[in-house]
Amino acid sequence: MSAALPLIDAARAPAYAELTRVHARLYRYYHLASIVGWDRNAMMPPKGAEARAAAEAELSALIHRTRTDPRLVGWLRAAEAEPLDDVARANLREIRRDWRDANALPESLVEAKTLAGLRCEHAWRSQRPANDWPGFLENFRAVVRLAREEAQLLADDTGLSRYDALMDRFEPGVRAADIDRIFGDVKNWLPDLVARAQAKQGREKVSVPIGPFPVAAQRALNAEVMTLLGFDFSAGRLDESAHPFSGGVPEDVRLTTRYHEGDFARSLLGTIHETGHSRYEQNLPRAWLGQPVALARSYGVHESQSLSFEMQLARSRAFAGLLAPMLKRHFGDQAAFDPDNLYRLWTRVKRGLIRVDADETTYPAHIILRYEIERALIEGEIEAEDIPALWDEKMQALLGLDTRGDFKDGCLQDVHWSEGAFGYFPSYTLGAMYAAQWFAAMRRAMPDLDARIATGDLAPVFEWLRANIWSQASLWETPELVRRASGEALNAAHFRAHLESRYAT
Amino acid sequence: MSAALPLIDAARAPAYAELTRVHARLYRYYHLASIVGWDRNAMMPPKGAEARAAAEAELSALIHRTRTDPRLVGWLRAAEAEPLDDVARANLREIRRDWRDANALPESLVEAKTLAGLRCEHAWRSQRPANDWPGFLENFRAVVRLAREEAQLLADDTGLSRYDALMDRFEPGVRAADIDRIFGDVKNWLPDLVARAQAKQGREKVSVPIGPFPVAAQRALNAEVMTLLGFDFSAGRLDESAHPFSGGVPEDVRLTTRYHEGDFARSLLGTIHETGHSRYEQNLPRAWLGQPVALARSYGVHESQSLSFEMQLARSRAFAGLLAPMLKRHFGDQAAFDPDNLYRLWTRVKRGLIRVDADETTYPAHIILRYEIERALIEGEIEAEDIPALWDEKMQALLGLDTRGDFKDGCLQDVHWSEGAFGYFPSYTLGAMYAAQWFAAMRRAMPDLDARIATGDLAPVFEWLRANIWSQASLWETPELVRRASGEALNAAHFRAHLESRYAT
Repeated sequence: MSAALPLIDAARAPAYAELTRVHARLYRYYHLASIVGWDRNAMMPPKGAEARAAAEAELSALIHRTRTDPRLVGWLRAAEAEPLDDVARANLREIRRDWRDANALPESLVEAKTLAGLRCEHAWRSQRPANDWPGFLENFRAVVRLAREEAQLLADDTGLSRYDALMDRFEPGVRAADIDRIFGDVKNWLPDLVARAQAKQGREKVSVPIGPFPVAAQRALNAEVMTLLGFDFSAGRLDESAHPFSGGVPEDVRLTTRYHEGDFARSLLGTIHETGHSRYEQNLPRAWLGQPVALARSYGVHESQSLSFEMQLARSRAFAGLLAPMLKRHFGDQAAFDPDNLYRLWTRVKRGLIRVDADETTYPAHIILRYEIERALIEGEIEAEDIPALWDEKMQALLGLDTRGDFKDGCLQDVHWSEGAFGYFPSYTLGAMYAAQWFAAMRRAMPDLDARIATGDLAPVFEWLRANIWSQASLWETPELVRRASGEALNAAHFRAHLESRYAT
Repeated sequence: MSAALPLIDAARAPAYAELTRVHARLYRYYHLASIVGWDRNAMMPPKGAEARAAAEAELSALIHRTRTDPRLVGWLRAAEAEPLDDVARANLREIRRDWRDANALPESLVEAKTLAGLRCEHAWRSQRPANDWPGFLENFRAVVRLAREEAQLLADDTGLSRYDALMDRFEPGVRAADIDRIFGDVKNWLPDLVARAQAKQGREKVSVPIGPFPVAAQRALNAEVMTLLGFDFSAGRLDESAHPFSGGVPEDVRLTTRYHEGDFARSLLGTIHETGHSRYEQNLPRAWLGQPVALARSYGVHESQSLSFEMQLARSRAFAGLLAPMLKRHFGDQAAFDPDNLYRLWTRVKRGLIRVDADETTYPAHIILRYEIERALIEGEIEAEDIPALWDEKMQALLGLDTRGDFKDGCLQDVHWSEGAFGYFPSYTLGAMYAAQWFAAMRRAMPDLDARIATGDLAPVFEWLRANIWSQASLWETPELVRRASGEALNAAHFRAHLESRYAT
């Protein structure tokens, strides 16, 4: 892989050329890290764990040394004044972002926060089943204190607010002011929409598919659906792991799933979700690979790809018509495989306590609640002690559920906060909204889109995503990418229209 | 993994402690290299190749920089005078060996030789099928010239002869004078032994198993036999690849095989062979892992483990009795699975042109021939042009086969020379001889060994190998390891006795 971007003259931009060389090297180190990480999760036998941990830690240390090389700061400064084209300029912006992420925090803080997070997360594993909020709080206070310290240093460095500085690492360019406006809007219409969806669905009959569904047949089905969705098996694999994930490198994407003989849909829909992530990676611009500008834009944009595939495509009535004959072929015929029934089955709305089990309509409520709490917590408007009362109040307001005293399935349910990961939750719902906005833009450009999907012609979807998202990689910060792709800023009206049309009409 | 060996006081041996730190780091880099190398061969889809090559090259460069760190030479000198126990002293010897291997040759020579080898090997792929010796010779002359230069530099550095200096990298401590004596002896009795074996077998009837043998059943059989042979599946895996190999790390050994539905024995016996390699790796001394003294001793000793498993154990009459019921269970009953028949089938002697297809009795002839030619070539006693005539002469003398004009299945059949790998061939037959010597020593200590093997009790074999080979790792150079394990120097009489008893009585 050639390190330098083709348009840049290294003699006229020597500092920039040095930076690209360092990042080409980092790209190769990340390749190694990614493949051995995939192996650890999908292949490694248990007794390999200790030596693997040592090898991975050695590689992490090497990557850290490379990202904090003292020569970088001089090159960054000099490159600013060098003649660079737009792609190189964007690449330089991303190189600076990476440098700041690696250098903004003193090592003592990184270490202290990692340790506090590990301790809190480890205890959380038993505190959650024991419903032990007071016990959790004891460790969690230190996590919050260190996260605030981290946020303050990042804020000093970037001129952003504390929470914005944290969120910027996951969603470059998106600010809490935007989120407030958008989530505020959603809060106005979501509870009513959920109520109407449930009222409508109360009158529907749904048949549940009857297993067992042999693992070999599920594997074959998944491979067939991935092929339909354009996954390139000559540049990636599907394997199995206890916790499904999407790993590997853009040139060689590694997905995993987990099979349950009683329920094929979990693996199938999960695999479709991961296939969305993987097509983004497989179609990042080849010419820039090895440089930060060629990387996927953000967590939210990545999630917009998986949710484009899972929510916009796979759970649509049109796609159910494509899946039905495949299901019959792999599992034998049964009434539940009727396309209308599959569609009803995979769009059931149910208010529940648990985020990861939530459907498409209630999921945003879980995110809004977490966002409001974590933002206030980081900005110092509330303290960790205040969380359970706020949780109860917001669950009541958004989903009409009483969670008082239930920490286990309330504010203790997620791993994120225990590890000190604040600023990440919005990306989930931003992803859902971006996905709806992409499909609205596609339908404006191609009014017959759904008819074409129903015939199995998915090329228009892929071509739109390729042109507007995949090929753009990290050329723009997220808000600019959204504007260029869809002609407007993030607009929750598209998400609302999608939910209205699918669930409440 | 702790870097320092427990018995060494870092304060009293600071230079030695530095060396162990460097090697602990190298051990982790090799771990990464080994896992991504396994992945490349067993898992990677084709489009991942280019990025993987770049990532692996980056890691190789890092390893090379680490092994040629200019501080090493001072530490090596200072460590000589430090108070070290015997294990540390042996470790220091191996660290120096590694340093010499990495530093003895100027980079320009390494590069030139690598390039010449790549060019010659690449052209060889089409020259071999085309029987094009003159074409091969054109590239091969440069390979020989550079290999001689390499050998001369290593000889200057070690005080050994040119060929000895090359061989020492594969078989530490073994010299051409030893090989001459041993191979000279074998040449005296081998042709007659092969003739008697063939005469005896001409009177035997052998049934060939009839397939197809489904891959799933072969997989299950292989796993069962590996378990019988003590393979630890919690510290390793068996997968599939086009060219079977044994990779991974001692903590996590990765074997591969290749299945043919028409012939289960190729995969089964190959897997048993690789299992021998893997048990050596899985049982290297845990306390020293991460340091060179903990590595397997040599190529020949490694081969003695695979051949102990494949030749001494698996192709014995006793083991055929253990395998027969397994074969019936996995493939259904058939006459060919009778233990006596299996034994006859897997000990057939056949004079052939091809080394890799040779049986246990004729294999040494192929090696002796190559050894005599490559040694003379490196020492400058012959030139590349002389090879075909010598090949013909020796094939006639050793196996009574006429190969005149057949370069394809003659001197062009192996990849080794094209790549410039001289000094390696003897290890194959040394391995076979060591294996016979180990089993002779076992039988002296345990006269009922074969009876115990016949009952499925393989523990005595494993315990002997563990005590005498596996646990010794690189504590001694090969000749000393042999003497300590078997009470004498390498003695081809044991190999002869093994062949006599199995094939000619």
